[in-house]
Amino acid sequence: MKELRIDKMTGDKVIFSSSRANRPKDKCKIDTKVIKEDNLEEYSETCPFCKGNEYMSNVITDEICDCNGWKVKSVLNKYPILDMETDLICGIHEVIIDNCKHNKNFYNMTFEEFEDLFKMYQSRYSDLKKIEKIKYVIIFKNFLRNSGASLMHPHSQIVAMSMLPPEVEKEKIYAINYYNDNKINVYDKIINDELSDEKRVIYNGKYFLMYVPFASRYNSEIRIISKNKDLVEDWNSNHVKELSFMFEKVFKKIYNLEGNVPFNLSIHSEPIEDDSEKYFRLHMHIIPRKYNFGGFELSTNLFVCSMDPNEYAERLKTNKNCK
Amino acid sequence: MKELRIDKMTGDKVIFSSSRANRPKDKCKIDTKVIKEDNLEEYSETCPFCKGNEYMSNVITDEICDCNGWKVKSVLNKYPILDMETDLICGIHEVIIDNCKHNKNFYNMTFEEFEDLFKMYQSRYSDLKKIEKIKYVIIFKNFLRNSGASLMHPHSQIVAMSMLPPEVEKEKIYAINYYNDNKINVYDKIINDELSDEKRVIYNGKYFLMYVPFASRYNSEIRIISKNKDLVEDWNSNHVKELSFMFEKVFKKIYNLEGNVPFNLSIHSEPIEDDSEKYFRLHMHIIPRKYNFGGFELSTNLFVCSMDPNEYAERLKTNKNCK
Repeated sequence: MKELRIDKMTGDKVIFSSSRANRPKDKCKIDTKVIKEDNLEEYSETCPFCKGNEYMSNVITDEICDCNGWKVKSVLNKYPILDMETDLICGIHEVIIDNCKHNKNFYNMTFEEFEDLFKMYQSRYSDLKKIEKIKYVIIFKNFLRNSGASLMHPHSQIVAMSMLPPEVEKEKIYAINYYNDNKINVYDKIINDELSDEKRVIYNGKYFLMYVPFASRYNSEIRIISKNKDLVEDWNSNHVKELSFMFEKVFKKIYNLEGNVPFNLSIHSEPIEDDSEKYFRLHMHIIPRKYNFGGFELSTNLFVCSMDPNEYAERLKTNKNCK
Repeated sequence: MKELRIDKMTGDKVIFSSSRANRPKDKCKIDTKVIKEDNLEEYSETCPFCKGNEYMSNVITDEICDCNGWKVKSVLNKYPILDMETDLICGIHEVIIDNCKHNKNFYNMTFEEFEDLFKMYQSRYSDLKKIEKIKYVIIFKNFLRNSGASLMHPHSQIVAMSMLPPEVEKEKIYAINYYNDNKINVYDKIINDELSDEKRVIYNGKYFLMYVPFASRYNSEIRIISKNKDLVEDWNSNHVKELSFMFEKVFKKIYNLEGNVPFNLSIHSEPIEDDSEKYFRLHMHIIPRKYNFGGFELSTNLFVCSMDPNEYAERLKTNKNCK
């Protein structure tokens, strides 16, 4: 079965082709099951992000501590994508070290460890947003080499930049057009539709909805949409607890299904200094990177999906009675 | 040094950051030098594309033969992205087996082997373009797993489809706007600029210009632009010879520099049934896939390049006096 589907959040066109998943693969295969990094130690002598190796990493911008010292911290990126000297585009690029232990990752982090991380996301986001010239702050994460990660120690990145990035601009334009045509915020429309259909909902929280989109460019993408207009800087401990609960549960489920799947996390908050609350809404993309995009995707910007979102959501559902 | 650059063919925004190439990578590294498949045999018992294993592959649509049988052939894809039954979007998806030998690839193919392949590209393109409902025919190639390839045997793919793919539509809109603003075809403008600057030209042929773009989303991308309005179906043996010469030379040079780098090839011909010759021009993208796009690229659609195009072109130049 093949059909053209439209991503309801971005307008992206996607070819849904369930049979593509069955094609044979030979020895140039990289099996993600092989990338089980479960044998890593808590500490690595050569890792610049490990506790004890602080001399190797850059200037600290923030940290969360207990009586044993730091648990999560943020540092300036030694190899920044942007700096404040760049012409036409400028910004600040920090690394958030998700956990002081080398062998922690989203698949084995505890609820409390996620809580610390989301608090750090909130703290760095709120600080960087206030800086003059900054038009957008993006938080993202690469896990394992196939997702673009260059270091194994669990870390996220935050970039404050002087322009709205093209991908968010695309989402913004789509949302404005949707609002103008329908007089409703497209994110509210998606939330309502997913809740009434129910099939693709993974977790329906008080503050956030976690679901598998009907169409998205990336196989098995998971999205989280804020159910109300709260900004990142407005999150209280209940928002953080809910996110931590959802993340801990869903990553454990993915691990049990498929092991250490490489993935990207991307947090798309609302554009700054913009009347965007009417049409936009904070949301997150969790994008598995098991397979690489091929020449068809790069040549056409048409993505081919073979994973049925209804089936995938069924395997990840956290509260069955999600309504 | 960091700067915002604009791709002159697509309008894509690119961050050029030379220092990013120096960041450290640890054990989640995949070193492309390791992927030397030089030890492959000419024949693999389990390969559906090998000579002798014809019973494993699908219906043949075309072949080029000598007295020993087929050298290059095309077959229907067993796992097509599109078929003629699909709703809203339909098409035909064929595989072109670049060479009958399992251990051939763009890095070791001879001039004559490239000639056969380009003849096959031309033949399949011309046939598929004539089919009713078809609005665009795209030829592309994935080499090695990191580029999306699922089989090692050298092969390309051709998809005839009932819509203009979004990436080509983007290029078309950019070219139309450029033409309307400047009364000159943007591809002619690029050719003229690159030839007078000369630094990024790899090969200046009679029919095609091969160069490294000043800005492109992908590190070390190489482009080929047709210098005149000839369509694929209009190519004569001289066009094919020139392309074969350029491809043989440049891939040998890349191999000597970096070994078997995974890559994608994508041929963007002119949109069908369209008054496009005024503003558009056939061109090709050769996109190395050594590193994967990370969360920053996926989240922002801003790509970060660290390879200086002038330096890279200097290493690949085939005729120094290219003017």
